[in-house]
Amino acid sequence: MDIKDVKRVTIAGCGTEGSQIASMVAYKGFETTVWLRSEGSIERARPRLASVKKQIVGVLEAWKTDPSAYCRGLSDERDLAPEQIDEFIAQAEERLPKINLTTSLEEAFGEADVVIECINEDPAQKTDLYEKIAPVMPEHTVLLTDSSTFLPSTFADATGRPDRYLTLHFANQIWRNNLTELMRHDRTSDESFALAEQFSHAIGMIPLKLNKEQPGYILNTLLIPWFRAALQLVATGVSDPATVDLCWELDTGATKDQTPFRKLDKVGLPLAMHIMGMQPGADDPATVNGQIVALLKGYVEAGKTGIAVGEGFYRYDENGNVIE
Amino acid sequence: MDIKDVKRVTIAGCGTEGSQIASMVAYKGFETTVWLRSEGSIERARPRLASVKKQIVGVLEAWKTDPSAYCRGLSDERDLAPEQIDEFIAQAEERLPKINLTTSLEEAFGEADVVIECINEDPAQKTDLYEKIAPVMPEHTVLLTDSSTFLPSTFADATGRPDRYLTLHFANQIWRNNLTELMRHDRTSDESFALAEQFSHAIGMIPLKLNKEQPGYILNTLLIPWFRAALQLVATGVSDPATVDLCWELDTGATKDQTPFRKLDKVGLPLAMHIMGMQPGADDPATVNGQIVALLKGYVEAGKTGIAVGEGFYRYDENGNVIE
Repeated sequence: MDIKDVKRVTIAGCGTEGSQIASMVAYKGFETTVWLRSEGSIERARPRLASVKKQIVGVLEAWKTDPSAYCRGLSDERDLAPEQIDEFIAQAEERLPKINLTTSLEEAFGEADVVIECINEDPAQKTDLYEKIAPVMPEHTVLLTDSSTFLPSTFADATGRPDRYLTLHFANQIWRNNLTELMRHDRTSDESFALAEQFSHAIGMIPLKLNKEQPGYILNTLLIPWFRAALQLVATGVSDPATVDLCWELDTGATKDQTPFRKLDKVGLPLAMHIMGMQPGADDPATVNGQIVALLKGYVEAGKTGIAVGEGFYRYDENGNVIE
Repeated sequence: MDIKDVKRVTIAGCGTEGSQIASMVAYKGFETTVWLRSEGSIERARPRLASVKKQIVGVLEAWKTDPSAYCRGLSDERDLAPEQIDEFIAQAEERLPKINLTTSLEEAFGEADVVIECINEDPAQKTDLYEKIAPVMPEHTVLLTDSSTFLPSTFADATGRPDRYLTLHFANQIWRNNLTELMRHDRTSDESFALAEQFSHAIGMIPLKLNKEQPGYILNTLLIPWFRAALQLVATGVSDPATVDLCWELDTGATKDQTPFRKLDKVGLPLAMHIMGMQPGADDPATVNGQIVALLKGYVEAGKTGIAVGEGFYRYDENGNVIE
């Protein structure tokens, strides 16, 4: 299958990521369906999709007067006149409300060219869904999973189409952070891998390919040890966040907001605590990992969860600038 | 002792780092002596000091017409007229040739206010020097070591002045990369720690304080796991340098030359190979660390040692720009 043959795309699940993915797929002109387990899920999905539409239109509106509001995922071209941006707004206003929500497996998967699975990170639920949709999907359908925790080989057999199954992992605020990590397992075909790459481009994403399975993909494989090293220096009393960040800034030439503790404040300390809690020895306060979790717990319990609430390792004003 | 009382500074050793440190100390107006073990060492030191002077004057000359040549260590102020920069050039031309080179312990250490030890990373040589100079140095002298491998507690007793002994660790091309890492051991006095901080400022450096001993200080504690993660992704066949670097760039907003493989090319692959060779299991080709060392060895043996020779993970033109 060539990308030109991809017309109908179905997203299974409509949480934070599913709603963003469905919206971007629709924005880029694909016939988009969201499959949900129940009518209740559909009712919960509608305001989420409305919120994503509002964010996308809001970014486009802001971009008309403020070039720094430009988001790579929404337009390949950066320098556009307000009238040209109005065309993108019209496109969003027209296409996003047309996303079809259904609980019917037949309606959602019976004619889908590409399926993106974004349901809960629960292996039993994923296996169940894959087994149910396997007989419904057309032969040619490429099935992608947005799972951030599981490797695709885990579910390859359950899909019934291991060669047409791989990971397409998204970030958050995908119109802005428009990278996708494509991870094949050892039975993914070259053709499906290439299609997922073309499809990423077609929905405004920049694909990064992993030729083998790797927990954490590329991004978290890089970020987690970097975060851990920075946290270690503070948790063990060697240094403090501002000094560690200054060191990174001075040596690498990074800007202040690209330093480890500023980035942790963006990621959010509860998520950082969750990730560090999975490191070896994290439940033992005598280990470095235990001290790191204790440090993060102190911030989280004090309500200092990161930039989103105005305070984490740093304090922020309403524009997200650090208050010195 | 206050920084105002620091007049005479002695640098023991005049290798790559010693010659740069002695030059910056002299440039900033301190009476500077270099102690060396033999007349032969003195003869080898002279061209090294001359080369550093040439580099410093070269940077200052370039800065007169090119603002991007500005180096933080040479001037606090960034926006200066050519005539003002000429004063710095005159300062370098006058002060750097006055650096006193001697093999006499009495002459080098008998009146020194601050001593910076930059001799070989050989514990026996360091112990021997510390024991020899202990009775020669005045009571008030603060003794600093630029060691990048050893913790100061290792030698504190040999110095005979554990309270006035700590690490002051420099980078390379210190007029440009003007950060110092100050690491105290558990008997370093607050006064000596504070003096080392003031002294860093006085010689144009930005001090980063470590309140406890930490192998690798701040910078290498951050860099090494980050390098290792990036190298792992390539050594195990998951990805390639350009994709890993693009991922870091897209997610963190870093510029292309602040990404892991570009930075490795700057550090130099032989040094990276040496550092990764000290990781657990590095001599076993079946481990990830073993695969990382094998990857680096392939580049080093092919002469692709980094940006300095025009090729490492990337190929560079004569201006240090990547050839796509």
